[in-house]
Amino acid sequence: MAGDRPGRKRSEASRAAILEATRDELTAEGYDRLSIDRIATAAGVGKQTIYRWYPSKSELVADCILAGYIVRPVIMTPDTGDVRRDIAAWIRSFAKESRTPSAASLTRAITAAAAEDNAVAAHFQDQVTITQETLVTRLRAGVDAGQLRKDTGVSTVAETVVGALLYRILTRQELDDVFVDELVELIFSGIAGDQAP
Amino acid sequence: MAGDRPGRKRSEASRAAILEATRDELTAEGYDRLSIDRIATAAGVGKQTIYRWYPSKSELVADCILAGYIVRPVIMTPDTGDVRRDIAAWIRSFAKESRTPSAASLTRAITAAAAEDNAVAAHFQDQVTITQETLVTRLRAGVDAGQLRKDTGVSTVAETVVGALLYRILTRQELDDVFVDELVELIFSGIAGDQAP
Repeated sequence: MAGDRPGRKRSEASRAAILEATRDELTAEGYDRLSIDRIATAAGVGKQTIYRWYPSKSELVADCILAGYIVRPVIMTPDTGDVRRDIAAWIRSFAKESRTPSAASLTRAITAAAAEDNAVAAHFQDQVTITQETLVTRLRAGVDAGQLRKDTGVSTVAETVVGALLYRILTRQELDDVFVDELVELIFSGIAGDQAP
Repeated sequence: MAGDRPGRKRSEASRAAILEATRDELTAEGYDRLSIDRIATAAGVGKQTIYRWYPSKSELVADCILAGYIVRPVIMTPDTGDVRRDIAAWIRSFAKESRTPSAASLTRAITAAAAEDNAVAAHFQDQVTITQETLVTRLRAGVDAGQLRKDTGVSTVAETVVGALLYRILTRQELDDVFVDELVELIFSGIAGDQAP
């Protein structure tokens, strides 16, 4: 990006316009169909300006993420007193959100940017940590209530759930009801303690 | 890449040299520390040639993958007659291989390239399918032998195992023994049928 020179203000305005247009384009079209042409038109800048600042799609998306233009919603885990129902509800909410046109594509974009860029990875890690914390907290309460085995590896369970869902998105498969139901059954028949049904 | 013009042969030789140097650099240094400078030197080409052909790291890695220069080993699942022991052995082999210096980084590189490029995604999907098939086949034999529940969702189990492992790699965490043991316990206490211990 431009440093302290006469054009700096104009550059900052252009950068903001590009990042806004990128966010809108990602939301409307998704990562796979992201068009630099359309972003340039929407931002009112030349295509070459975008290519000069961002040689790759992932660098453009990375700047969008780090500048706070792209935020994935964090889904909180409910607590109804029934841990299986609550974790299943969280998985269903995540799956439902991922079926919106842009969400899966946006997740792939964030993953690509995080794999390429350590700063994005650290930022992404914060979001991931919050997501896992909501699952871990609910699982721990389930252990305390005797609904889950005392030796449940709560972090491993949370990571396995998120990993399985992310894997389906990365391999471009839908998070359909069959997968969700089988995942819940797999996880719970594994961790259900003696007070579970 | 260059088309049918006088410099075509030289371009093809340069491309091969760049891709070979990229593979060597990835193996020695990993994706995060990939240096275009060192690749250019090793390939005997100018840095600008690489940037002209490959504006981003992921495009360079993508071409490496599609041209067959980068191949991740496919780990086969043993069949000793004890399905839990065999799946656990596969997970341990995968984890051990991932702890070699370049493997985790290479996995992140492939994931980034696959997220950016549909052709790489399709190629990656083939490798993923082979990996999953070896797990699915072993799980199915376990169901037939009565060691696993009759209603085991074998594909979901295979995807969950691979997804959990990939997730640890993407979030830059080691696949240590505690994680591996907890994952095996989680999976098997979930799918162990009435002939299991």
